[in-house]
Parts: sequence; structure tokens; C-alpha cells
Amino acid sequence: MGNVKTVRWGVIGLGWFGEVHADTLASMPGIELAAVCTRRPERLREIADRYGVPRRYTDYRQLLADPEVDALSVVTHVDDHRQIAVDALRAGKHVLVEKPMAPNVRECDEILAAARDARGLFMVGHICRFDPRVVLAKQAIDEGRIGRIISMHARRNLSKTIGRQVLDKISALMGDGIHDADLMLWFSGARPLSVYAQEVHPGPNRYPDAGWAMFRLEGGAVGVVESVWHLPETTPYQIDARMEILGTEGAIYVNCGEAGLEVHDRHGPRMPDTMYWPKPFGQRFGILRAELRYFADCVSQGRPPERITPEESRAAVELMAAATQSAQTGEVVRLGEGPGEG
Amino acid sequence: MGNVKTVRWGVIGLGWFGEVHADTLASMPGIELAAVCTRRPERLREIADRYGVPRRYTDYRQLLADPEVDALSVVTHVDDHRQIAVDALRAGKHVLVEKPMAPNVRECDEILAAARDARGLFMVGHICRFDPRVVLAKQAIDEGRIGRIISMHARRNLSKTIGRQVLDKISALMGDGIHDADLMLWFSGARPLSVYAQEVHPGPNRYPDAGWAMFRLEGGAVGVVESVWHLPETTPYQIDARMEILGTEGAIYVNCGEAGLEVHDRHGPRMPDTMYWPKPFGQRFGILRAELRYFADCVSQGRPPERITPEESRAAVELMAAATQSAQTGEVVRLGEGPGEG
Amino acid sequence: MGNVKTVRWGVIGLGWFGEVHADTLASMPGIELAAVCTRRPERLREIADRYGVPRRYTDYRQLLADPEVDALSVVTHVDDHRQIAVDALRAGKHVLVEKPMAPNVRECDEILAAARDARGLFMVGHICRFDPRVVLAKQAIDEGRIGRIISMHARRNLSKTIGRQVLDKISALMGDGIHDADLMLWFSGARPLSVYAQEVHPGPNRYPDAGWAMFRLEGGAVGVVESVWHLPETTPYQIDARMEILGTEGAIYVNCGEAGLEVHDRHGPRMPDTMYWPKPFGQRFGILRAELRYFADCVSQGRPPERITPEESRAAVELMAAATQSAQTGEVVRLGEGPGEG
Amino acid sequence: MGNVKTVRWGVIGLGWFGEVHADTLASMPGIELAAVCTRRPERLREIADRYGVPRRYTDYRQLLADPEVDALSVVTHVDDHRQIAVDALRAGKHVLVEKPMAPNVRECDEILAAARDARGLFMVGHICRFDPRVVLAKQAIDEGRIGRIISMHARRNLSKTIGRQVLDKISALMGDGIHDADLMLWFSGARPLSVYAQEVHPGPNRYPDAGWAMFRLEGGAVGVVESVWHLPETTPYQIDARMEILGTEGAIYVNCGEAGLEVHDRHGPRMPDTMYWPKPFGQRFGILRAELRYFADCVSQGRPPERITPEESRAAVELMAAATQSAQTGEVVRLGEGPGEG
Repeated sequence: MGNVKTVRWGVIGLGWFGEVHADTLASMPGIELAAVCTRRPERLREIADRYGVPRRYTDYRQLLADPEVDALSVVTHVDDHRQIAVDALRAGKHVLVEKPMAPNVRECDEILAAARDARGLFMVGHICRFDPRVVLAKQAIDEGRIGRIISMHARRNLSKTIGRQVLDKISALMGDGIHDADLMLWFSGARPLSVYAQEVHPGPNRYPDAGWAMFRLEGGAVGVVESVWHLPETTPYQIDARMEILGTEGAIYVNCGEAGLEVHDRHGPRMPDTMYWPKPFGQRFGILRAELRYFADCVSQGRPPERITPEESRAAVELMAAATQSAQTGEVVRLGEGPGEG
Repeated sequence: MGNVKTVRWGVIGLGWFGEVHADTLASMPGIELAAVCTRRPERLREIADRYGVPRRYTDYRQLLADPEVDALSVVTHVDDHRQIAVDALRAGKHVLVEKPMAPNVRECDEILAAARDARGLFMVGHICRFDPRVVLAKQAIDEGRIGRIISMHARRNLSKTIGRQVLDKISALMGDGIHDADLMLWFSGARPLSVYAQEVHPGPNRYPDAGWAMFRLEGGAVGVVESVWHLPETTPYQIDARMEILGTEGAIYVNCGEAGLEVHDRHGPRMPDTMYWPKPFGQRFGILRAELRYFADCVSQGRPPERITPEESRAAVELMAAATQSAQTGEVVRLGEGPGEG
Repeated sequence: MGNVKTVRWGVIGLGWFGEVHADTLASMPGIELAAVCTRRPERLREIADRYGVPRRYTDYRQLLADPEVDALSVVTHVDDHRQIAVDALRAGKHVLVEKPMAPNVRECDEILAAARDARGLFMVGHICRFDPRVVLAKQAIDEGRIGRIISMHARRNLSKTIGRQVLDKISALMGDGIHDADLMLWFSGARPLSVYAQEVHPGPNRYPDAGWAMFRLEGGAVGVVESVWHLPETTPYQIDARMEILGTEGAIYVNCGEAGLEVHDRHGPRMPDTMYWPKPFGQRFGILRAELRYFADCVSQGRPPERITPEESRAAVELMAAATQSAQTGEVVRLGEGPGEG
Repeated sequence: MGNVKTVRWGVIGLGWFGEVHADTLASMPGIELAAVCTRRPERLREIADRYGVPRRYTDYRQLLADPEVDALSVVTHVDDHRQIAVDALRAGKHVLVEKPMAPNVRECDEILAAARDARGLFMVGHICRFDPRVVLAKQAIDEGRIGRIISMHARRNLSKTIGRQVLDKISALMGDGIHDADLMLWFSGARPLSVYAQEVHPGPNRYPDAGWAMFRLEGGAVGVVESVWHLPETTPYQIDARMEILGTEGAIYVNCGEAGLEVHDRHGPRMPDTMYWPKPFGQRFGILRAELRYFADCVSQGRPPERITPEESRAAVELMAAATQSAQTGEVVRLGEGPGEG
């Protein structure tokens, strides 16, 4: 062997999570953080200087035109996903878009169409699909260890402090419920038949702070998603994320919120992130790194991602868009009735 | 002082829980287990002999006619509550009926009417109202420590082994959801506006093994109830019971399933009951005893129970009956539209 | 039947825990809070007025001379236990002394001698012996479900806030370790052969804030006791109390610190007491009440307490006194070598 | 950039954990699994064939002579570490040895001498030093968030099923206590002054199944290590591993045993490994991978490992060897009295 080809990676969008992408990519063997892009020149300089990135863009189209970039992370506002993803695919790049894929099914379909015709690979960054806790749960389900699924519940709650920063861009129900909608469809392998949802909007931001959705799945299982971005500022949870999958022969309990560490100091108890993207003593660890590794390996080896397909990402958007509609109308929304749906 | 008048107590219905009532009452100071009643003569003899109870009846009407009985536990099938409770109240007894009060609102109303005209006191045995974990949660809410309630979730799941024994008499959603419906109304102090529910029926019994209900309450909070009586036989939970109450300023987490004891033996891990009605070394302890104590004190002191009123018990039945209707029709049920409802 | 004789009870010592005794006794049927005693006249008036207690004493000898008092709680400083207990037993009272029985074995022996000659009953208030979590653990051990015990660990840690108030009277190791020394001897039924201990003394109080003791028991088991009264002020634990008992065939995990309730408010998360002596909505509940009930029943029925004997209480003092000696000398202390010891 | 030099890696010892090394290395970019070695020809063929490794040796000296191997994992019986490590260092290889470094201090010193003179790098695989839960705890300590350490406890307990397979090679106290001895020295930055230990030996294997050690550290902290490889076969724990670090201003709770996943199937509840070396859907994840990555990066960049030094690995062996001596003699062992010790 001897040598491996590195994947030259660009990051579009340098908010806090774009920075996490950049920081993680910069430390990974076989990957070169080759380019960064944001509309804000100061932020661009800050991040590019920190990682010694020579290719710096304030217009993503210029980045797409750069032949020295192979792959991209799109970590922008969800409303911009469609335009950038479609342009990037047409430009021949490999494209990793953060979740949710897009705000609605129509825009998902435009991306899907572009991805079908593209040379580059396409994947939505459903990080939970790379979480060993979740993936081992899926394996246990596939091995038949819990029988047929009867009931699922998922919670993904955050503090007000975080909610306040995000709730002008996306609702709690769409922003985090998308994870669990995807996982429930994946775990069950079943189509959703109907969804009912309620939202609560105690905060001053544009979108509701709290939402609950209840799905009925083909085959009879019920799935319930809880997403409340309004825990007290003093909450010890970085995220209170858990999932229970109850089957006819067994049960699975996933806890992604209590990740093995509690620090009680004068500010009170806190449970820091130890799994998603911690950086103990400067070495990035965790699930985001595994996700980026997976996509890089797909790129290197020229094989389309199978761990999460674009169609699956679209199905999660479809389900949570229907949930949002139910919350707004107060009515049950039926799904999957026409061809090409679900 | 010197002496206290004992309350002479009868138990009608000697299934497993009637036996727990009898056994607890037999050990309590100030209470005399004076009479027992069941249609099954052998069972009657077994229990009456064990506790040395002289007054033994196979017909509850005879017990009601016995002037040496002051108070009653009615621990029969829910479908028999109305008839026995009404007769007992008319006979001048103090009456404690197990939850749910009755299978539907109409029968609740008949009992309420009888209770209004009666000399005796009436209470439904909503045991959770006497659980210190729950009651201290209510106190914290009333003190304003979590602000206004946004979202509540309650789970009360049991193993198949137990489900199988109960699911011919009542559904999981009604049987255990009644606890949480009551608590959510109590915690929030709000009327329910609508309810949507789903049930799953994987088992062979008459009623569904699993149910979820979502309430919208006046004031905007959402309440979600989960009740699955189909956990695997190997589950370590005696009961997996927990509740989260999320407010604008704080959050409360109640865990009634992990009660401080795990025994891992060759059959695997189990978490025995340490709170509801344990009997370590022959001394009954716990919440049921506190509930019976409370009712006995009300009787001794001639004051109507305030910890849970008949109207509140009726409201929980109304809500869960509406949930059951929703589960059967697949439609949202609106509540509380007319005067005098809710 | 009809009537029961009430037990007329006095409380000597009205610090915070004497008040809890008084408050609990005042609410119990079959018990009359008949007398209270403290050297502090204002405190005496406060407590006596609150509960309407007519017999009020600033000298415990006067209380002992009062023929209208049957039984006593001695809730004073541990250094005063011997004198009061001996005098009370000689005065013919039934005596319940808080733990530890006395600060050393010699004083325990004086009490034991007085108790042997007394008309009244005597018990030390080892509350954990009435904790259903602990008692059900003991039952499982006695049933052989975990085989022979190999290893035990017990933790009983408190915040600095509490430690600061208590550490001038007793060390953490003696003050809380006494519980676990007693339980380990009870669980194993074995004599201690040796003990080694370490203490740490970071705080300004008279006694060390933190201690660890390791016992070797006859039969080969190891027992380890941890007692740290120096958790941060922000700790969510009311008490971090847990115990693990590992046997050749099974294992038992007791958690007395996480008792089913977490309240997260603007001061951070806290886990209130729900088991020892909570008073939700004015009704005392819990283990202290069960302990007092048990002693009252023994008094009523004229049978010596068996749930914890004076000899067992003495053995716990002996073991923890040896631990303290080890911590002070840095050497292993051998026990139980002479007849009549251990 | 474009290309990176791969590190060519050999694995000596192909027991179950040598296989985990091989499997992990085979999947890592920038690393080539170049050679494997075991005395057992069939096992050699099995592993080498599975990963397509051309260089196969039954004698480790031949592997050391192979110029196409840069770095090594030594995953043999601990008694063979010294010989192989010394030879490998003399042969100019980079050497990663599994923990413990060696069975005693003398052999550690021989390895240290060889490492000092060697061209290659040397590290002992103290995996916990790469565990984000542990490392973030260390960071919090270094930031002063818990003040000065008072008390530490660590548990690392395993089922009998695993114990039985390992207890002929090493004791529980040495085998797992070595992790926690190292971490306590690292966390506190203090020298051990004394150690006292007890072991229990209920099983039929050569070494004791259970051990407890208590350290006194310079500066006054106490450290207590628990290692019991005798949990019941039905234990849900893959490993029951937790650590508490109590300081004057705060406290840290690490739980490495409950790693976010419980699967309850017909065999009962289990908590699979999700952190150390899980392989969900064929992608290795976790801490072992991070450790190997770190050593590979050190090799690539020619910088000596700083995350754990050979001297630190030796100090852990010294401490646990003293603990073993204490357990055997029943006496306290004093440490660090001579120059060059500790």
C-alpha cells in the first residue's frame, strides 16, 4: 500500500456547527480542510487563519468553482440547503448537508433530482445514524431480539439558553424531531400512516419551543416524538435525549443524554457532551467524526453512502412537515395515500 | 387523651389487591379489619381465617346491612363499582373505591349523586395522590418553582406477565392512564380541551395492551400519557413509572419505577416494590398504608377527604374515556364544551 | 375490640431532629406526644406550643419523674446518651435512643447493663433497619439469592452545608458510618476480624469531614464504608447514599440517595427526601414513622424489640470506634480476639 | 498536501484482545495492518487471512527482524511483556504494550531502560487515558473546578463469566485496579504514601476474584479501588465501571458502565459496550481506536507520547504491586520512602 489519497474538503457556513465541522475535519487523517466559506469576512478570516486554510470564500459559488475541492459540508440555515446543494451537485462536488435535508418535501425532491444526475455523492448528516448506542439498537431489532415493535418514544430536549439561539431558524419539533422521525422509520422499517401533533410556544422566538408528535405506522406500531427546547438554564443536561423501543418480545432503552460524566461545581451539576463531538485535550472524538469518516471513505472508495440514503432523509422531512401541519391545524394528518409518497 | 375510637373496616372483593387492602388494614392501629366479602366461599374462608375476621359475606348486600362495619374498601372489578358504591353510600357506610371510579362518566355521575346525599364519606383510591414523590412535585409546582407548565409526560408500563392477568378487565390506557390523567389535571389545575390517542393490541386479551394519549389543556400545556402492559417477562421493572413536568422556569422528574433496590440473582435483575405496599419482615410500609390512614383519619374526624375529591376522580374518567374513544375512532375528541363538563 | 391504649411519649432534645421526632409522633394514631424537654426555654415553648404539649421540662430528670410518660425519644448530643438512657431506664421508661448508641464501647456497656435490669424496653434508632429498600435486601440475602457475601460497599455522603452543622459533634465516619457498619454486620451475620481506616479533614470543624473504613469479616467478606460530609453546596443530593452487596451467586444494589424525585428550579437540581421523613401536604410519611410505629407496637404489646437489639447497636459502635482508632494511628486494628467481644 | 505516509503496524499476541487490535487497525486510514504474530499456527492463519495480512509469524523475533513493520501492539500475557518490549525497542520498532506494563517494578524498569535508549517510541495502552469521560474529568480537575481532591473511589467489576477466563493470568486487583491506580495518580498529581488492601478468593482460578485497595496520597487525599470479577452471570453490566472524585469545591461522577444502551430480550437486560471498541454495522468506533490513532500520530510526527508516559505506567504497577503485597500480608505498605521511587 503505502499511501492514500486525501479528500480535500470545504465547509460552507461557519456558524457554531460549521466551526465544529471545520475543527473536526482539520484533525482527521486522509482529509484536508481545503476551503471555507461564509458571507461574513471577519468570521471567514478567523476560522481560516486558525486552521491555516488558504482557500477562503464569501460566495459559495466561487467555492463550487474551485477544482481543488472534492467534498463539501453544507452547514447553513436550513432554508439555504436546497440552492447550495443543487448547485454543488451540478458542480460535481460530493455533498454532505446537515439535517434536516430541507424545510419541506418539495425542496427535498429538487435536491434528490440533482443528486440522481450528479457525479458526486450526496448524504444528509443524520448524526444519530452513526451513534453506536443507536446503531447497536438497530442491530438488536434486526436480529429479532425484541420481536415486533409496538411502541416507541423519543425525547430530545434542550435548555432555553440553546433554544433561544435556534428558535428563530427552526422549530423544536422540526429541528430535533427530525432525528427521531428518521430513527423510528429506520427501526421499524414501516411507512407512517398518520400523524398528530401539538406545539407550545411560551418563548419570544419565531418558532414554537416545544412539540409532541404521535405517528401511527403501517404494521400497527405507535411512535411518539418529544422535543422541548425550553429546559431551565440550570438543567444539568447538555441534551436530555432518550429513546425507548418496546417490542412484543423485548425492549430497548437508549440514553444519549447521560453520557457518563457529571461535573458538580459551584455553578451546579452539568453533564458535558462526551459522545457527539467532545475535544478532550485537543483530540476530537466521537460520532460526528465517525460520520465524516464514513462519508470520506465513501468518497475515497467511490461508493454511494448506504448508512442513510437521500430518500430516507426526505421521508423524515415529509413526516415532520406533516407533524407541523397537524400542530397548526389541530387535525390528524393522513400520509402515504398517493403513489410516490412516504 | 388516652383512647381513640377504632374504625371498623370491611373489604369487598378479595382478588390480589383486595388481599393487599385486607393485609394492610389488619396491621394498622386505630383500624379493625371487621369484615370481608367475596362471592368465592373458599377464598373468603382463606382470607378471613388468616386475619381472624369474624364477619364473612358472599353477598355484599349483607355486609352493607351489618351495623358493625363503619367503612369499606371496594376492590372489585371496575364494572361493579357503581352498583356497590351507590348501595354502600345509601346504607350509610364510608366508602373507598379503587380507581378508576367507574368505566364511564354516566356511572361516575350516579355515584356522585349518591355521595352527595350520603351520610358517609366517599373517596376513590388514587394512590398516587399519596405518593410523597408525586405530592412533593405538586407542592413544588404550587410554589411556582417551575413556572407555568408547558409539557408533561407520564409512563406507567408493566410486564406482559401482569398485563395478561388484567387485560381482560380493563385496557392499559384506562387502567393505568387514569393515574396520570388525574395527576396532570391536578398538577396543571387546567381543564382538558382535546385528546387524541392510539392503542396497540398485540396480545390475546380482550383489551389493548398499549396506549398513548395526548391532551391539550386550557392554558396551553400538552400532556402525554403512555401505558404499555407488554414489557418482556424479563423486565427488571416491577413497574416502569415516571413522569416529567416541564415548566417555563423549571422541570420536575419523578421516577416511581426505580425505587432504590435492585436484586440480581440467577433469574436476572429485578427492582422490587419498596414504596407502594412492600411488607419487609412482616411490617407493611408505604403509600397504600398512607392512603388508608388518610381515609381512616377523615372518618374518625368526620371531615370529607380533600386530597382527592369525587369530582376530580370523575374528571380523570371523563378524560380517559375520551382518549379511548379517540383511539377507537382515530379522531381528535374535543372536551369541555358544554357547561358542567370537564 | 373498639379501643386501643395510647402510648404517652416524651422527646428529650429538641434540635432539628428532636423536632422531627416530635412532629412525627404528634401525627401518629395510638401515640400521644405527652412531654418535651430541652435546656433552652424558648425552644421548649416554641415546640410545646406548636403541638399543644402540656408537660414541658428543661431538666430531663423531671421528665423522667413524670408518671404520665411511658416512652421516650432521646435525641440529644451523642455524648449525653449514656447518662440520660441509664437514668431513664432506671426510672422505668421505655427508651428509644438515636444512633450511635454512645461514643464508645464502655458507655454502650453501661447502657446495656441498665437495659438488662430495666422494666422498660430499650432500642437504638437505627433507622436503616426500617428502610424497606434495606430490609428487602436483607430478606433476599437470607433467602440465599446472592449466595455468600464477597464484598460490600456503602456510601453515605452529605453536603458541606450539612457537614458544617454537625462536624463539631461527631465525625463523618462515626456519624454516618455507624449505619453501614451495623448493616454490614447484619447482612453478613459475621464478626469483624480487622478494620483499617483513613480520614481526611479539610474543613474547620472539630471532627474530620471524610472517612473510609475497610473491614475484614469472619468468613472472608470485605466491607468498605465511605462517609464524606463535604459535597459541594450545589450537590443535588439530599444524601448520596448507596450500598452494593456482591455475593457468590448474585448482587444487590441499594440506592437511598435518588429517591424518585428531582426538582430543577432556578437554584439548580435537587433531590428532596421522599423516604426518611417527608411531610407532603402536612402528612408525615416514611421510615422514621415506621421505626417509631415499631417501637410503639413493642411497647403496647410488651415485647422486646427484635428488629435491632442493643447488642447489635453496641457492635456497630465497637467497629466504628476501632475504625476511628485506625484512622488516628494509621495501623490496622484487629478485633474480636477475646471472649465476649464483637 | 495530497498524501500521507502510512504507519505499518504489527500485532503480537492474537488472543481475543489482540484480535480487537488487529480488527481496529485494519479499518484505520493512514495505518496498514502489516504483520501478525502468534505461536498458534491455526489462529495465525485465521486472523491473517481475514484481514489479508501477508506477513505472518509464529516467532515474534522474526517479526521484529522484518524491516517492513514500523510499529507494534504487544497484546500478550503480561508475563511476556518485558522480554518482547525490550527486544522490540532494541530492534528499533515503535512499541505499544497493553496494560499493565509488567507484573512488577523490576521488569518495568528494564523496559524503561530499553525505551530510554531506543529510536522507537514507547507507550503502554492505558485506554482510560483516551476515554473522553475520564479525560474531561481530568480537564475539570485541572481547571480547579472541584478544588483540592479529598476522596476518590473507582469500581471496575466484571461478571464471573469473564473473570473465569482471565483469573489464571492476573488478579482482579492488578488486572483492573491498574487502570484506576493510574487515573488516581493522574487526577491528583500526588505521590502515594501508603496502601492497604484486601482480596477475596471465592473462585477456583489461580488469582483472587475480588480486591479492594485504599491509598493515602501526599496532600491528604484518599483513593479507594474496587475490582470484583465475580458478578453474577446474569449481570446486565458489560462492566460496572464508575469513579467519583470528591473535592473541596466540587465533585465529579464518571460512569463507564452504563453507556447509553440497554437491551432487554428473553435472556434479560444487558448493557452492551458502546464506547470502548463497539463495531456497529462493521465500523469500529470508540476509545481503543482513539488510542491507536494517537500513537500512530505520534509515530507519524516523530513526537514521544505525552498522554501517558512510561514512568506513569510504572508508577501504577508499583502501586498495585504494593497493594497486592498488602493483601497478602495483611499489613499496611508504606511507599515512596527511597529516592527514585514513586
